[in-house]
Amino acid sequence: MIKTVVKGCLVVSLVLGATGCANESTNAVKSAVVKDKATSLENLEYVNPFIGTGGHGHTFPGAVVPFGMVQLSPDNPSKGWDWTSGYHYSDNQLLGFSHTHLSGTGVGDLLDILVMPFRGDYQKRLDNELKRVVSTYSHDQETASPGYYSVVLPEENVSVELTATERTGMHRYQFSGYESAKVLIDLGYAQNYDKAVSTFMRVVDDTTLVGYRISTGWSDFQPTYFVAKFNRPFTHQYYLEGKPFFGSAPIKGDTINRPKTEVVLNFGDLSNKPLVAKVGLSYTSIKGAEKNLAAEVKDFDFDSIKQSAENLWAKQLNKFKVTDPNEETKTKFYTALYHSFLAPQTFNDVDGQYFGADGSSHNSQDFKRYTLFSLWDTFRALHPLLTISDGGRVHDMVESLLAFYDETGLLPTWDLMSNDTDVMIGYHAVPVIVDAYLKGLTDADPERIFAAVKASAMQNQFGVDTFREYGYIPSELEVEAVSKTLEYAFDDAAIAALAKSLGKDDEYEYFSQRANAYKILFDKNTSLMRGKDKNGDWVKNFRPTYVDHRNTDYTEANAWQYTWFAPHDVEGLIELFGGEKPFVEKLDTLFSMSSEMEGSVVSPDISGLIGQYAHGNEPVHHVPYMYSYANQKWKGENRIIEIRDTMYRNHVDGLAGNDDLGQMSAWYVFSAIGFYPMNPFSGEYVFGTPEFQQVDIQLENGKVFSVKQQGSRSAATPYVKQIRLNGTITDLHSLSHKDLLAGGELVFEF
Amino acid sequence: MIKTVVKGCLVVSLVLGATGCANESTNAVKSAVVKDKATSLENLEYVNPFIGTGGHGHTFPGAVVPFGMVQLSPDNPSKGWDWTSGYHYSDNQLLGFSHTHLSGTGVGDLLDILVMPFRGDYQKRLDNELKRVVSTYSHDQETASPGYYSVVLPEENVSVELTATERTGMHRYQFSGYESAKVLIDLGYAQNYDKAVSTFMRVVDDTTLVGYRISTGWSDFQPTYFVAKFNRPFTHQYYLEGKPFFGSAPIKGDTINRPKTEVVLNFGDLSNKPLVAKVGLSYTSIKGAEKNLAAEVKDFDFDSIKQSAENLWAKQLNKFKVTDPNEETKTKFYTALYHSFLAPQTFNDVDGQYFGADGSSHNSQDFKRYTLFSLWDTFRALHPLLTISDGGRVHDMVESLLAFYDETGLLPTWDLMSNDTDVMIGYHAVPVIVDAYLKGLTDADPERIFAAVKASAMQNQFGVDTFREYGYIPSELEVEAVSKTLEYAFDDAAIAALAKSLGKDDEYEYFSQRANAYKILFDKNTSLMRGKDKNGDWVKNFRPTYVDHRNTDYTEANAWQYTWFAPHDVEGLIELFGGEKPFVEKLDTLFSMSSEMEGSVVSPDISGLIGQYAHGNEPVHHVPYMYSYANQKWKGENRIIEIRDTMYRNHVDGLAGNDDLGQMSAWYVFSAIGFYPMNPFSGEYVFGTPEFQQVDIQLENGKVFSVKQQGSRSAATPYVKQIRLNGTITDLHSLSHKDLLAGGELVFEF
Repeated sequence: MIKTVVKGCLVVSLVLGATGCANESTNAVKSAVVKDKATSLENLEYVNPFIGTGGHGHTFPGAVVPFGMVQLSPDNPSKGWDWTSGYHYSDNQLLGFSHTHLSGTGVGDLLDILVMPFRGDYQKRLDNELKRVVSTYSHDQETASPGYYSVVLPEENVSVELTATERTGMHRYQFSGYESAKVLIDLGYAQNYDKAVSTFMRVVDDTTLVGYRISTGWSDFQPTYFVAKFNRPFTHQYYLEGKPFFGSAPIKGDTINRPKTEVVLNFGDLSNKPLVAKVGLSYTSIKGAEKNLAAEVKDFDFDSIKQSAENLWAKQLNKFKVTDPNEETKTKFYTALYHSFLAPQTFNDVDGQYFGADGSSHNSQDFKRYTLFSLWDTFRALHPLLTISDGGRVHDMVESLLAFYDETGLLPTWDLMSNDTDVMIGYHAVPVIVDAYLKGLTDADPERIFAAVKASAMQNQFGVDTFREYGYIPSELEVEAVSKTLEYAFDDAAIAALAKSLGKDDEYEYFSQRANAYKILFDKNTSLMRGKDKNGDWVKNFRPTYVDHRNTDYTEANAWQYTWFAPHDVEGLIELFGGEKPFVEKLDTLFSMSSEMEGSVVSPDISGLIGQYAHGNEPVHHVPYMYSYANQKWKGENRIIEIRDTMYRNHVDGLAGNDDLGQMSAWYVFSAIGFYPMNPFSGEYVFGTPEFQQVDIQLENGKVFSVKQQGSRSAATPYVKQIRLNGTITDLHSLSHKDLLAGGELVFEF
Repeated sequence: MIKTVVKGCLVVSLVLGATGCANESTNAVKSAVVKDKATSLENLEYVNPFIGTGGHGHTFPGAVVPFGMVQLSPDNPSKGWDWTSGYHYSDNQLLGFSHTHLSGTGVGDLLDILVMPFRGDYQKRLDNELKRVVSTYSHDQETASPGYYSVVLPEENVSVELTATERTGMHRYQFSGYESAKVLIDLGYAQNYDKAVSTFMRVVDDTTLVGYRISTGWSDFQPTYFVAKFNRPFTHQYYLEGKPFFGSAPIKGDTINRPKTEVVLNFGDLSNKPLVAKVGLSYTSIKGAEKNLAAEVKDFDFDSIKQSAENLWAKQLNKFKVTDPNEETKTKFYTALYHSFLAPQTFNDVDGQYFGADGSSHNSQDFKRYTLFSLWDTFRALHPLLTISDGGRVHDMVESLLAFYDETGLLPTWDLMSNDTDVMIGYHAVPVIVDAYLKGLTDADPERIFAAVKASAMQNQFGVDTFREYGYIPSELEVEAVSKTLEYAFDDAAIAALAKSLGKDDEYEYFSQRANAYKILFDKNTSLMRGKDKNGDWVKNFRPTYVDHRNTDYTEANAWQYTWFAPHDVEGLIELFGGEKPFVEKLDTLFSMSSEMEGSVVSPDISGLIGQYAHGNEPVHHVPYMYSYANQKWKGENRIIEIRDTMYRNHVDGLAGNDDLGQMSAWYVFSAIGFYPMNPFSGEYVFGTPEFQQVDIQLENGKVFSVKQQGSRSAATPYVKQIRLNGTITDLHSLSHKDLLAGGELVFEF
């Protein structure tokens, strides 16, 4: 376990040898999160932003507000896949603090507008290999809490504090010693296959800098604009590709081959005078960045901005009130909530302007445009969670998805800054939108919604056309044919549900039939989902544990892992197995068999293994809850508890796999409360087993829904015996969203 | 000489074997430019857009309106430097018709949104080497006139006609035969070091396509958006890197490595049914392109759009009415006018939105934003010409330059789509703005203007800081030190003139002194401009005819060519030579000495040689007029006539060098009328010798200024004997802008 909150000033004292806090930075102590200060901030104590920054969690520790545009966070020099968030806890070198980060993805991008305080001669400080200023740091001198991050860089004689508003990053640097305090701003910094293609920087006056960084990479085309204002004047020197650029003129990264545009700001001697910078961001224009900054940060009061960020987090986290003596599980829970509330991110400017999927600016008059929809992951539990905690945001997210449809003719599969990365399979914007519609969380025209979701199902790419032609996807015609067939069938079930509610009988029939496609690929001989060729014959050489990353019938998985993907029709799936008994036996085998897999190219995403169950990746997330459908709920409870205990830990390596923009965390949130959205668009949450004595969910309608234990879970009474909803014994199966919204009390009796 | 106007329908008949014009295309005949149709269109007959499309003129023959955003013109597969406009008359292969072209530049760029009608199977039609559809054509079946271009592509069985509005390109294709008529739209096409970095295309419905092409290259970062609407429905197939992309989804060029985004539109059998496309352009957004198209082209009436384009050209060209029996020189003159009125180009949308130099959208509420300021070339004669013909545009051009200053802190040196190419030397936005100010053509705040022009002179790049430090630029500290010293001194003279008019005495003193810097580099021993080192000693191994492209003390020139660059102080220059006699002797030598140059890397820009005088490049353009300052005007007249006769011809190879966005042509316009702006910001036009019997200049204030010959120039009376302004004998030196604006009559007596 690692420390989550260290008082910044104390660290400064230790490192810089000061006898106490510097005068102007004492506020840092006052505003640091203190458990006993105000009840409303209490839950912030239970957030450890470092969870998942080690191992393969791919989270970042920096400062952010809920669903904020800005994620101001430290960046290490990347050493591979585990640095996709810019940061990995195993590292001890920093390149600086950039303003945008992805939380838990399997591919790296963003990391825009890198800012680094340093000392000495810039050119002499350049690392031979990296050609950048690199500074070592120690985790002992590093803290993070919601909306706040601090670190000491001993080589630079500087302590760094970061906080953020929705669209602004704020830095406070305390330099010591009498040499010149310098700040480097680097627009060329990129990671993974991200690459700056055009950069621009302009010193407007001696405290203000504006610019942009336009990059390609995972996001094909991503313009990011900024304005940076400092509380003290600077002189400046531009550098192009590491060489001085003697210009009073603005500096531009000329071509895709010379994007390394930097400026060094020199503030002179700043001993005991904190340097504060506020950096406004926009994805539309410099003017947009200026508007955003002006609207969100009036002056240079770091502490009040930090406090605002903490208040936003408190408000967000306090929607879930846990009563339980176990501080460790509370930390796991509130950190999971925290990680669930980072994305989708705010994407538009304060005046509604946003960068559309057609590469043009648009205005979102009536909604907040969000981006970062990692839908293959998040349709499962994250989006259903938001329908409970953030109905208003769900409304805007649906509008955002529909705007993408308006701009391109198709809903996104993975919207990264208005670019569809097309990285995963399925058209899972569909269940997200349908769920929101059926729960009454969108006022969009139903016909517009229907046209949008249907367009996905009628497209001619990614095997969807083949799916329509054959009723399943023959393996020789398309990679990942089994996974695609199963997921398209599921998405089509969502369209059918929408058609039904709109009285579109023909469409309901048509899509209901498509929703059954999963049945075609169930091989009764092996009781596994198996590919078929276009003649309808099973593919030969079937190897159920075989894996080869993105190159088989299964997506980041094997047959054992994908066999369970019919969350819209678990009963139908059980029938295929020949009934509950063989179904449960197969489930038991899944969890108990060897974790070994055939094949030389195991996807790094296949992690968190229990048998062949791989909790570190998404396709299986609903599986433990399937026991309930076969009257063996207790077996599921065992697995749920095992997963909660072993796959989620209060540790930097505390996530079993990529957090995937909150899906991994949202699984924990649901599973700790005590239920899970098996079918994410059904409005039903299937029961599991609660982690806590009590969780009170503060609903947006003002009501409270409480989930309690009665007769605590123990070795003697390990399983849920009975469940009462508002005093009445309910079946052991599921809770409806409608009942949840009504408020009341759900009691799990052991 | 080549044909300028061939009746489109006639050509179609010949090639396609039709017995007459197809029914629906007969209008093409009616609206083709006919000399005797209407007096107002008469001058269009004298424009030959093919002049300069051969040799090194680098012009293009396509359809454009005066100063239009769209230049819809044919593109050949580039075979080198002479294809910078996309087209060279020596070629006989076409790749299609793109919507943006540079006229006469030495570097290639633009060529956005390539459209190609073709037949057959797209993939089979791809040229092995070029990986594009290539079609041969013959100049016999090609015509061009202001606002109109046509060609027949026999391999495709199609005749092509192009016309344009300010922001829209219009195509009319007449396919014959019964196979499928196809149109390819290619966003990956690029030339020179231009490269598409992100492309997007979306079929909105069966007659509409939208998209963008974002490129880097000479213009670091250039987004171009479009909407294309067709008068007939199509089916479509996207291609990515030449391979079918099976999507109903939009198609995006994924990365900088796979930008080749294409779509093939299939219109089926179109025999005798003309296919018309209208393509709206914008540099801000797809919405902008849609607005532009909607505002400028209501339906698919190609002929009426063509007629509007012709009317715009007639209006523009008729500002100069030539009375002269020599049809050949009239063609040279009106074509020179035509080429003078292509740039700067319209850059903003109809609603004022434009792409700013800070990479952000701005709105030009009160002015039209222009781009394409090739200032090193055009400050000399083109911009002064526009102060006579287009005062309103000059107003907007000044606002455009000042907007660039607002956005970046510096005026542009060479504004290419809001990117400063920094390709040439000097800060020649300054004389353009000062000239406009002193002529009363801008209402911008004088203090804002002064701050803008001063910022250029006080910048710390391109040796301007060195220039301030030493009073000249030492050769060892900066490349092209002599040329820069001379041109900075000239620009500073313009700032001094502005300072004087604003009563800024100190600034006037300061910049007047800087304006004298040219004197420091005049070597009295050689009577040539020569580099000095920082100790003030002449550089060793002085080789006056030595050239090495962009790598010596002189910019695209040698000492002989740059010695004359003090157009702001010819009298002072003459003094340096020791008086008029040695000055004239040196001038005589310039024109009469050998044209051979030392050095192995002769700049291709150094062309059009008479002795060492190189009319094909700009630095010498004022030189023939210098004789007038030394009382040897007649010698200048000889040279002016020689240049007019030999460097300008009604021929595809009719320009002595790059037209450089009209500067080469503007020289001819002035010189044919009879005077030239020696010092472009002085408001004085020094007399030469008129080409024509009479030129009537229709001024914007409603007055007419007529330039006439009395007693025609002939072998017996070759020189101007006397000049009368409104009947009064004037000196033989110059005409003031003020006198010109007053209207009246200037008579050259022979």
